[in-house]
Amino acid sequence: MSAEKVIALDAMSGDLGVDAVLPAAARVLRERADLRLILVGDLAVLEPRLAQAGLRTGERLVLEHAPETVTMEDPPSRALRAKKRSSMRIAIDLVKAGRAHACVSAGNTGALMAIARFVLKTLPGIERPAILTALPSIQGHTLVLDLGANVDCSAQHLFQFAVMGSVLATAVDGVDKPRVGLLNVGEEEIKGNEQVKEAATLLAASGLNYIGFVEGDDIYKGGVDVVVCDGFVGNVALKTSEGVARMIGHFMREEFSRSAWTRLAGLVAMPVLGALKRRFDPRRYNGASLLGLRGIVIKSHGGADQLAFANAVQVAALEVEKAVPQRITAQLERLLTQRQAI
Amino acid sequence: MSAEKVIALDAMSGDLGVDAVLPAAARVLRERADLRLILVGDLAVLEPRLAQAGLRTGERLVLEHAPETVTMEDPPSRALRAKKRSSMRIAIDLVKAGRAHACVSAGNTGALMAIARFVLKTLPGIERPAILTALPSIQGHTLVLDLGANVDCSAQHLFQFAVMGSVLATAVDGVDKPRVGLLNVGEEEIKGNEQVKEAATLLAASGLNYIGFVEGDDIYKGGVDVVVCDGFVGNVALKTSEGVARMIGHFMREEFSRSAWTRLAGLVAMPVLGALKRRFDPRRYNGASLLGLRGIVIKSHGGADQLAFANAVQVAALEVEKAVPQRITAQLERLLTQRQAI
Repeated sequence: MSAEKVIALDAMSGDLGVDAVLPAAARVLRERADLRLILVGDLAVLEPRLAQAGLRTGERLVLEHAPETVTMEDPPSRALRAKKRSSMRIAIDLVKAGRAHACVSAGNTGALMAIARFVLKTLPGIERPAILTALPSIQGHTLVLDLGANVDCSAQHLFQFAVMGSVLATAVDGVDKPRVGLLNVGEEEIKGNEQVKEAATLLAASGLNYIGFVEGDDIYKGGVDVVVCDGFVGNVALKTSEGVARMIGHFMREEFSRSAWTRLAGLVAMPVLGALKRRFDPRRYNGASLLGLRGIVIKSHGGADQLAFANAVQVAALEVEKAVPQRITAQLERLLTQRQAI
Repeated sequence: MSAEKVIALDAMSGDLGVDAVLPAAARVLRERADLRLILVGDLAVLEPRLAQAGLRTGERLVLEHAPETVTMEDPPSRALRAKKRSSMRIAIDLVKAGRAHACVSAGNTGALMAIARFVLKTLPGIERPAILTALPSIQGHTLVLDLGANVDCSAQHLFQFAVMGSVLATAVDGVDKPRVGLLNVGEEEIKGNEQVKEAATLLAASGLNYIGFVEGDDIYKGGVDVVVCDGFVGNVALKTSEGVARMIGHFMREEFSRSAWTRLAGLVAMPVLGALKRRFDPRRYNGASLLGLRGIVIKSHGGADQLAFANAVQVAALEVEKAVPQRITAQLERLLTQRQAI
């Protein structure tokens, strides 16, 4: 919480748009004296709402006008080429220009990735950026990447993801030698496709704390700090997990509302079930990192409310504080030097 | 429940081996008058235990000697080449020889698939067998394939999986025009890898009730009867789901055992939580089909107890009754004729 950090917020994107971002900004400014925010969006929309959200422009809050908005329906190519004055684009431009240390957007992931990659470029040694998030586990949480930026990945890409995830686990979670696992299937002999097998060889020789293949359930068991997979597999794992959790919640409500007696039991169990629900509150896990770029870009969930969006801003602040992109570059250089030295 | 069905049980495989299979056999014989069973295993092990399990050889139960057992550590190639007198192999041989209509094994999936494919061969028009199982959904259940037999799949393979899954939904679940979805990632433009995109084109022109791309959470939402994916993705989805469910169960126990008060709440809520647990009881979903073979082979979970194993036998009986392999062939021929007619 030392040096001051400037974070640009795409104020127009996401399902709730300004209705989530403005109160989130107010909350963050109250909670963290070390942050300054730039709200990027249509001034005609933003200005009249500031007071109501308890915000006032000044040293810690400035507005940046952006007349356009990227919608969920905009394909990335269109968002990139035809919406150069969108709130998403300008928030990223501010990072590129060095006016902001990081930006946060709840908009369309594909568009955000395409614009961020075009404007900021990837770090040296990183061919493709990846999306990383923390998922809850029995022992705390597990970092998983890629979650959907790259549907086809080579072994080299998976290796680079492992380096980035490992750096994040050390920088942000303070894990000394993060255990890195490669997501794979469980059957013997038919173990893995070619890319995964080749990535395993690269990782075993990398100097990272590579613990070998892990399976889908290991994400939630704990015992591994970083789980690496291609974006297709990662996205399916993420969505499947959400589906299971939602189904269990649905059946739980159904069972507790079956009769007067079960409703009573539900009332008695309410505080415990509430505590359980808070433990899984996806808002606490909001804020996925677009890793591998020459700048910090955080993706907030499209449906994020103010609490969730504020959490994504905290993630951005933490990555600024820990200088994540610089650390990724340093770690890659260190690993490559080690390899050459052998 | 008309004609008599003969099912061969690999009595030696699985974590519990005979301790699960013998009581399961007794249960199935009690419950279903239309079944006859062949217990395949080491006679020196089986014979002394029959009486204790309430079994007696006779018209409905015969034993078949198999001196070897495939272990979980046996790679498929070794199981196939070096263990030709294993209980798993002989159970499949009985199907090939026409002495059994189907077989059930709780052994090593890779070995089971390799042996089944070698002995029985694939159906005409099917290049690769796939593993299918039913997963619970808010609206009932969803059939998902492939769950791990094929880590790399072409569009043609995915198409063949869709045909097989669709046939199973009609034959076994009685769904008239099963809705078939192709598992994919959610982001626009970066939608899917090449195989998935090409499979979508094949399916759209197939005459199946193809409803388009679905995401991981759709498996549990319902709204789709058959979800098609490659074995890598399917296996990760399955294991991830198990992991999430187990983590939620873990946290629930933890929350309910926090204090005297929460333990009391747990007692009150117990009947409701018990009902919830029964709904997810994986034993009710035990019995994955190895589809696409010239014969019916059902894989029971390695950790299956007698109830779970008995369920797998019921799945086998149902597939015999519905003549699943014959129907797959007929459906493939119908779809190909339609396509040529266009």
